[in-house]
Amino acid sequence: MHFKRTETHAAWDRTLPPLAVITPGEEFTVDTADASAGQLTAASVSADVPGLDFTQVNPVTGPFAIEGARPGDALVIDILDVSVASWGWTANIPGFGLLAEDFPDPHLRVSSIADGRAELLPGVFVPVVPMIGTIGVAPPEPGPHPMVPPSRWGGNMDIRHVGPGARLVLPVGVEGALLSLGDAHAAMGDGEVAGTGVETESTVRLRVTVLQDAAPVTPIVETDARTQRTGAALATTGVGPDLMAAAVEATRALVGEISRRTGLPAEDAYLLASVAADLKISEVVDMPNWVVSAHLALSYFD
Amino acid sequence: MHFKRTETHAAWDRTLPPLAVITPGEEFTVDTADASAGQLTAASVSADVPGLDFTQVNPVTGPFAIEGARPGDALVIDILDVSVASWGWTANIPGFGLLAEDFPDPHLRVSSIADGRAELLPGVFVPVVPMIGTIGVAPPEPGPHPMVPPSRWGGNMDIRHVGPGARLVLPVGVEGALLSLGDAHAAMGDGEVAGTGVETESTVRLRVTVLQDAAPVTPIVETDARTQRTGAALATTGVGPDLMAAAVEATRALVGEISRRTGLPAEDAYLLASVAADLKISEVVDMPNWVVSAHLALSYFD
Repeated sequence: MHFKRTETHAAWDRTLPPLAVITPGEEFTVDTADASAGQLTAASVSADVPGLDFTQVNPVTGPFAIEGARPGDALVIDILDVSVASWGWTANIPGFGLLAEDFPDPHLRVSSIADGRAELLPGVFVPVVPMIGTIGVAPPEPGPHPMVPPSRWGGNMDIRHVGPGARLVLPVGVEGALLSLGDAHAAMGDGEVAGTGVETESTVRLRVTVLQDAAPVTPIVETDARTQRTGAALATTGVGPDLMAAAVEATRALVGEISRRTGLPAEDAYLLASVAADLKISEVVDMPNWVVSAHLALSYFD
Repeated sequence: MHFKRTETHAAWDRTLPPLAVITPGEEFTVDTADASAGQLTAASVSADVPGLDFTQVNPVTGPFAIEGARPGDALVIDILDVSVASWGWTANIPGFGLLAEDFPDPHLRVSSIADGRAELLPGVFVPVVPMIGTIGVAPPEPGPHPMVPPSRWGGNMDIRHVGPGARLVLPVGVEGALLSLGDAHAAMGDGEVAGTGVETESTVRLRVTVLQDAAPVTPIVETDARTQRTGAALATTGVGPDLMAAAVEATRALVGEISRRTGLPAEDAYLLASVAADLKISEVVDMPNWVVSAHLALSYFD
């Protein structure tokens, strides 16, 4: 099954009718719109940025009902492939981004994407490491819920490690989970400091399975060694409006996963995290919720 | 010149007499004590942790007066080599560490270190990536200043990328800079979540130079490709009691360095940081100041 990038929604809502019912284990393919929902094009310039209609941004394709998924289950999402378009955009949007006070003016750069790299600026190339910025399930609380902030149900987490070869584990909040995804990036740094990556359309091939009664407290990612700058790791997350609380939440989740998967006592798992795990600020711009992730090499779980 | 690990001090103070005057460009070698100042040994057990005398912890060897260094200059420190001892300790110290509430009891593990790895737990090996936890210059404000919190003058920054092959740039606060270092780790993760790495004695070979009137606002690290899990990068820092403010400070410093070193306009440097730089929580345990670092591959500065 192949779903089109026009079949999107712009808020999380448990009452949205699913586009399709997906059988666990089957592969399906999803085209995603860019984060501007087509408002920006390869011909856009900085002056077009202030005109963006924010009610349309970060559209996600979906939702997909997953057969048999029930609240309290874990939804295991294998990202088999993410292919990106031949161009992307990166912008400073006034009022948005970590240095919003320093950069009050709109600024847009359009990258051409070819041969595994994006030309962000004339002569400045960034390696293409495709990722899915927004992927989540419907929150159980009545909606609509806005698209920009991520939550424990996923959404706009902007974790750059959610790319080809990665496995994402989300808690299921409603019957059928109601999975949606979009907001692909051809490249992004941990933090996404200006609020945008190389924003692009994409085609994502994926497969989902359901683990009964195994919902994680917050999303978990098993990263792929192809992910730039880090190898294969288990990454737990903390999501919320305070970076310190998110760091505590991510670390607590990692210590729990180490204990659960290896049988180590929690106090030893904590020491292992201290000497071998890395805390990353995955995003610090999707107001008002930030994501901290705690990464430990998958080899420790063998 | 080779300095012994007994020649330490346990607070930062601009009035401390220097051990020696170092000529810029000359190599010298510094033995460092472990963070417990020898209070813990390879025979120590968890029950020994509560007895630690905290007035002695994190001793640094020094200070070294650097010939010609003046306030407002940059002190450029090339870490040529860090060799660590054959054992190290890792502990949960009650009241200290990111998950202090979850882990109220003392817990100690002694690692044997050989063949490039530390055996943290029976059968659980961590790659040895030596680093210097505490390295800094005397603050210009009258002291003494405690050893645990880092500051813009460096100190207990616990940035795991400050290891062999790295270059650290510190602002100079007083005549002669008064450089000191200690608190080596055989391994540590970004964040140092339990508050300790694999704590060990070390021997550090280094060389310093002075750049006139070039003090960075906060410390800068040029990391070495040998550093585990990331390649060669320029890392700027933010230091303080609020992770968000530290993230802003580190990002602002990175955008400034990109512009200064490449000539790119600030608004383009900001977009480059957004798509290619990574925010890491270097330490979140050295109360009350945390360190966030922003890393961009050195290749962008070529």
